[in-house]
Order: sequence, then structure tokens, then C-alpha cells
Amino acid sequence: MNKNAIVLHSGGQDSTTCLVWALKKFKKVEVISFDYGQRHKAELLAAKRIAKKLKLPHKTIKLPVIKELTKNALTDKSIKIKTGKGLPSTFVDGRNQMFLTVAAIYAKQKGIKDLVTGVCQTDYSGYPDCRDDFIKSMQKTLQLAMDFPFKIHTPLMNLTKAESVRFMQKLGKLNLLKYTHTCYEGSVPACGKCPACKLRLKGFKEAGLEDPIPYH
Amino acid sequence: MNKNAIVLHSGGQDSTTCLVWALKKFKKVEVISFDYGQRHKAELLAAKRIAKKLKLPHKTIKLPVIKELTKNALTDKSIKIKTGKGLPSTFVDGRNQMFLTVAAIYAKQKGIKDLVTGVCQTDYSGYPDCRDDFIKSMQKTLQLAMDFPFKIHTPLMNLTKAESVRFMQKLGKLNLLKYTHTCYEGSVPACGKCPACKLRLKGFKEAGLEDPIPYH
Repeated sequence: MNKNAIVLHSGGQDSTTCLVWALKKFKKVEVISFDYGQRHKAELLAAKRIAKKLKLPHKTIKLPVIKELTKNALTDKSIKIKTGKGLPSTFVDGRNQMFLTVAAIYAKQKGIKDLVTGVCQTDYSGYPDCRDDFIKSMQKTLQLAMDFPFKIHTPLMNLTKAESVRFMQKLGKLNLLKYTHTCYEGSVPACGKCPACKLRLKGFKEAGLEDPIPYH
Repeated sequence: MNKNAIVLHSGGQDSTTCLVWALKKFKKVEVISFDYGQRHKAELLAAKRIAKKLKLPHKTIKLPVIKELTKNALTDKSIKIKTGKGLPSTFVDGRNQMFLTVAAIYAKQKGIKDLVTGVCQTDYSGYPDCRDDFIKSMQKTLQLAMDFPFKIHTPLMNLTKAESVRFMQKLGKLNLLKYTHTCYEGSVPACGKCPACKLRLKGFKEAGLEDPIPYH
């Protein structure tokens, strides 16, 4: 068993913060991202850019099956991005479970047991697969499925978005966030209006810091 | 929530037995199979044939990511099929977890909560993801991931292969097993020598019944 970790990296603010956290905690870090047909493909370019900046090995894994099987606003442009009663239209059924399963399979081939993900239940947007209960259950399931001592690290689980911003500041890499992509619309500069942009802007505002990315 | 079920069907003996069981238990049954780059593609043809015989809707879902990421004797012909100390070379890391995750995502889109799989811990060939502990944990994880009351049914979990054969006889469809494919080598007629063939033959022998498929 080695002291390396795999970071699941979307190219967004949270997973980039986790990536910087992992670089301090683990000996070696590898980055993986998932291309699941998301409308905001810009995040994959951001992930690539950030891994390059940090000189880390980066792999994008294609998972077209998610788009093939589910109907949601992130993989289908004909569905409007909206929140409200019930699950938001941007919830992608089983996405984090798929990502973590694939990441674990990939990690085990390399003898790596540590997985890092940026999920967070504080500002979790109503996504059930961002809750700590899910992560704990997932960790156990992965261990049983492959007879391997996987550990899922979620450094942001109980932080608010404002606390996440300050956490990144404390890690000394706030400036790295200028390379991240958050906007669900996939627009660059960011739209500033979708739920993801709003949450991000609120976090920076509450932290009393300026978001380094440009907005429309 | 409807009274339908999704049966995960490999085209083999066990999942075919489960399919017949499900037909007695649920109002409507849909069948899914996975093409993950297995060397025994013959099982996918068997799955298709059986669904057609039973006049059931059948979908084959492509999961090339499994072959892309793992190294094992089922997806790589250069690796010899063997058992012995530790995990057998035919163990595909995370296979059942992937299958059940995808099946659950697919099922939820149709409002179906019941999933049926032929895993069995009695003659489980050393595969950790065939154990009841794994299935129970997986069921809970799926429920948490998608906020949906999934139920995973495993009618064969505690049966020996001989008991599974007798179970199928009791269900009145023993003859359907002649359309199944079990051989890991993918050979038709079956090789009779690989671990999967041996286990199958042993089951029929102990049940005092004749296996209806031809062997070399």
C-alpha cells in the first residue's frame, strides 16, 4: 500500500481546494476527471489546466453511460437549470457513486487506497450524494466489493462555501482558483446567474474576498 | 413506485434462474446485460436469446470503462484463467458495484426500485462482491446516493450450485438452461474445464440432473 492519493477533480472550486489539501497530505497525487457529457465541458479544460499548472498526472475518464441513461439539466441542454421543491434539475442520478466506483477501481490497480473528493453537505444544493452518510456507506461498500481498505477523504464536508474559500486562502493557493470553472451553463466568463455561480459568489462575498474569475 | 423489476442478466445459469424467479414475483420484468469487454461475449448472445424466448424487453449497456481500467483474465485474453491463493485471475475489480450502480440509475429513471441479481456467496469463487455483506451495503449506498428506496434481491445468495439447479427445476424451467452460457473461455460448446464450467457441472452432478448444454 503506498502513500499516494487519487483526487477526483471536476475543475471547479471545491475539488481544486481538495487537490491543494491533498498535495500537503500525501506523498504523490494523481488527478482524475470525468467526461460524462456535461454541458459545462469548460470544467474539463479547467481540470486539465490546473493539473498542468501543478505538474500532476491527469487522466480524463469517459463515462458516456451517465448521459445515455439519465435525464437532467447538466447533460441535456433542453432541460432548464432550476432549483426549488424536490431534487434540483441539475441532480445527476448516481453521479458521485459512479465517479467514486470508477476512481476506486482505477486506484486499486495502482495500489492506492486514498481517494479525495470535494463533496460537501453544508451547501450541498439538495444533492443526496454529497452527504456524509452517503460517503461513509460508499466507503464501506467499496471496501467490501474489492476487499481493499479504501478511504474516502472529504476535507470540505462540513464547511460552508465561505469557509472553503478561507480554507484555500489558508492553504496559500487562493490564486489557483482563477483557473477553475464553476458555471453550470458552461459559459466563460461565468454567467453569474446559475445556482453554481450564485453559490460560489455568495461564498467569496461572505469570506470578504474577491473571486478571481471573470463574470459576465 | 411500480411493481416492476430490473433483472441483471449475464446470460448465465444463475441470472437466468433469477429471471424466472422474478417473473413469478413481479408484475413486469425488464432485463439488462452489460458489455464490458468480456472474452466470453457468447454470454451476451445467450442473454439476448433468453429474453427473446421469454418475450421480455432487453437492453445491453456498454461499459468499456471496466476493460479500460482493469487487468484480469476475463477482459484480457493474455492472462490465464486460474484460481488458487488470493483473488482468482478472473475477478474483475468493482464489476458488480458498477453493474448495480448502472442498473439502479437505469431503474430509477423508470420509477423501478427492485433490482434482481444472481450473486451467490455459497459457491462464490472467491469474489468479494458476491457476498451478502457487500449487497446489503450496496443497497444502502444506492438508497442514500439517489434518495430512492432501492431493493436488491438475491434469491440464490445462500444456495449451493446444486440447490440452484433444483430451484430452477422447481420453478419449472430447467429446460431454459440449455440457452445459457457459462464458459469463461467463451467457447461454444463449453470447454468443460474452466472454473465456471467446472462449478456448473459439479452443480448438475450433485443435483442428480443432466446439464442441457453441450460440452467439448
